[in-house]
Formats: sequence, structure tokens, C-alpha cells
Amino acid sequence: MEAFNQQVAFILEMDRLKAVYRKSMLKSDNNRYENSAEHSWHVALAAQVLQEYAEEPVDIHRVIRMLLIHDIVEIDAGDTFAFAAQHELDGQEGKEWEAAQRLFGLLPETQSQELKHLWLEFEQAETADARFAKAMDRLLPLFQNMANEGGSWAQHTVSKAQVLQRNHHLKGLAPKLWEYVCQQIDIAVEKGWLSD
Amino acid sequence: MEAFNQQVAFILEMDRLKAVYRKSMLKSDNNRYENSAEHSWHVALAAQVLQEYAEEPVDIHRVIRMLLIHDIVEIDAGDTFAFAAQHELDGQEGKEWEAAQRLFGLLPETQSQELKHLWLEFEQAETADARFAKAMDRLLPLFQNMANEGGSWAQHTVSKAQVLQRNHHLKGLAPKLWEYVCQQIDIAVEKGWLSD
Repeated sequence: MEAFNQQVAFILEMDRLKAVYRKSMLKSDNNRYENSAEHSWHVALAAQVLQEYAEEPVDIHRVIRMLLIHDIVEIDAGDTFAFAAQHELDGQEGKEWEAAQRLFGLLPETQSQELKHLWLEFEQAETADARFAKAMDRLLPLFQNMANEGGSWAQHTVSKAQVLQRNHHLKGLAPKLWEYVCQQIDIAVEKGWLSD
Repeated sequence: MEAFNQQVAFILEMDRLKAVYRKSMLKSDNNRYENSAEHSWHVALAAQVLQEYAEEPVDIHRVIRMLLIHDIVEIDAGDTFAFAAQHELDGQEGKEWEAAQRLFGLLPETQSQELKHLWLEFEQAETADARFAKAMDRLLPLFQNMANEGGSWAQHTVSKAQVLQRNHHLKGLAPKLWEYVCQQIDIAVEKGWLSD
């Protein structure tokens, strides 16, 4: 039962992702901050719904599995705002790598390696699956902010250029989604939710 | 873009699952109540980690996709406690069916049908995939309650017989997990977290 006890310990440790709060606000729940666990659920579901827009074929099951674990390193390393200043990001990569060692290391060896590789693939964003997963992770806050009078953009005075930059890889990956993003950003500027 | 707009509307509506609170309490976050969105993430991840214990082969990707949507009807129908009295459950099935019609109905037809069937398969729990998914959904609160001094069991004076009954299908599905559940229930009785 050694392997099983390790798996239970990992599953219990995952509960802590529910206590990692992001900068996004939930209009659906009195504008409280969103946590990284519920975000991970939402983006995994959104990826499934939007898979048809991927220009290159993606293995949606791998994409979903990546998205389920993509943020778990935040249990140790914390969440960083998408538009944080560079000095706030210093050392973050190292912290996330250490977190991955510790957290995936709770699992039995084979499973630990498998999930750590999947997480690393997401981070490196070089495969079609990882790039699509990452694009979804960046697209979802746009949907949420547009439905919430600018949400975290408006609260943190984010600029049009920053949001374009953050989503520009959609251009080649999923042109229809890119077109939508550009339209939405124009609307956001017009409404004063993004600075020009 | 008609289909795309429907998909965005569905994704945004899903945000509301983050405002549906369950009876489980999160030790990891000051014992606040858990919501159904973060629970869905957790159980999808747990199923992946524990898949090797399924006696019958399961398609883990279908299991994960089922678990991502298994609770979305709660957006309209609300959550019901696992150990609710029968009169509190009256009409729940009808409410959930109406919720499924409305929520999956937000999507383009083909996608709507596909996800609705997947949800129905979970509900009916007749296939190996659905039975494993449902077993995971019932097992996770046991892990959480055992790590939290009885958690929602202790708070609602749940009995040993009720928890055994709720998990007994594990016996055939995943004997090792069933054995673990029985041991844990005995410990919970000893500690006074479950009534005998």
C-alpha cells in the first residue's frame, strides 16, 4: 500500500490549490477573487469546448490533463499576475521548479515522472498540445474580464498592448479566436477598461 | 460566428458553478465551504491518479471529461448533501434534468448532444467509465473528512452505515480502494467522527 499512501498524500496536498487566489474576480460570486483550482477546472472545460478552433490538430485529452495540473506549483510558489512587473517575476521560475520537484515527488516514481513531464511540456509551450493549452489559459481571463466591466484589467490599469502581446500566439494557433480577441480588445479600449 | 458565440456564452455561464457551495469544508482554506467547480477539478485529477485501482479497464479520458461536467447542473438545481434526507431530494432529479436541458442547450447542437449524453452516462452509472467516475466522486470527501477531523460527517452526524452504503460499489469496482475505505471508516468511528 506504499504507492497508494503516496497517492492519497498527493491528492490531499492538492486541496491547497483552492487557497491560492488569483487576480481575476468572479462576477458570478460577489466579485470575490478566483482561486487556481476552480480556474483549472474552468480552463480544462473551455479547452474542450473550443478545440475545433485549433489550426493544428491537438490531442484534447493531453491538453485537458495538462490544464488540470498546470497551476499546481502555485501551492508552493504562489500565483503571479499575468501583467506583473518584471521585478515581481524574478525568481519565480526557480520557485516553480522547486515546487514541481516537491509536489510531483509526492507520487510514486513512474506517475511522478509522467506528470512532471506533462507540466514541463506545458511550461515550455513547444508542442501543439502545450501551445493550445497555454492559449486557453490566457484566453479565459479575457472572456471573464469582458463580462465583468474590465475586471482585473480595469483594476490594475492594464494596456491594450499588454493584452495583445499576451494573446498574440493565437494568431497562428487559432486564427478565429485571434480575430475575436482583437475585436474584444477594441471594445474594451472604447469602454475604458483597457488603456490605449 | 454563431456557434462560437454560443460556446462563449456556455463558458461564461460555467463561472456560476464557482458560486455553488457544497457541505464539504476545506481545511486548506480556513475551513470555508468547498464549491462545486474546484471540487470538479479535484476529483478529475484524483481519478487520473487512482485509475490503476479500477478492476475493469476504464477510459480515463472519458472519466475525466465526465467529471469535468458532472456537477454543472447544480448551477440551476443547487447542490444536495450526500446524506440528505429523502424529502430534501424530492424533485431534485427533475430539476437537474431541466438544468441539463438549459445548460448544455447553450452550446451548438452537436456539442450539446455529446456533452448531455456524457452527463447522462455519469448519472446512470451503468458503464465502467461512469461507475468509476462516480466512485471517485464519492471517495474524495472521505479523504477530505478523514484529514479534517471528520469534516462534514462530524458536522452533520453521519453514520458508519451511511458512508459504507455510499461507497459500497467500490467493492467490485476497485477492491483495494474498498479495503482502504473500510479501514478509514473504522478509524472514524473510533475517533467519534462517524456514529456507529
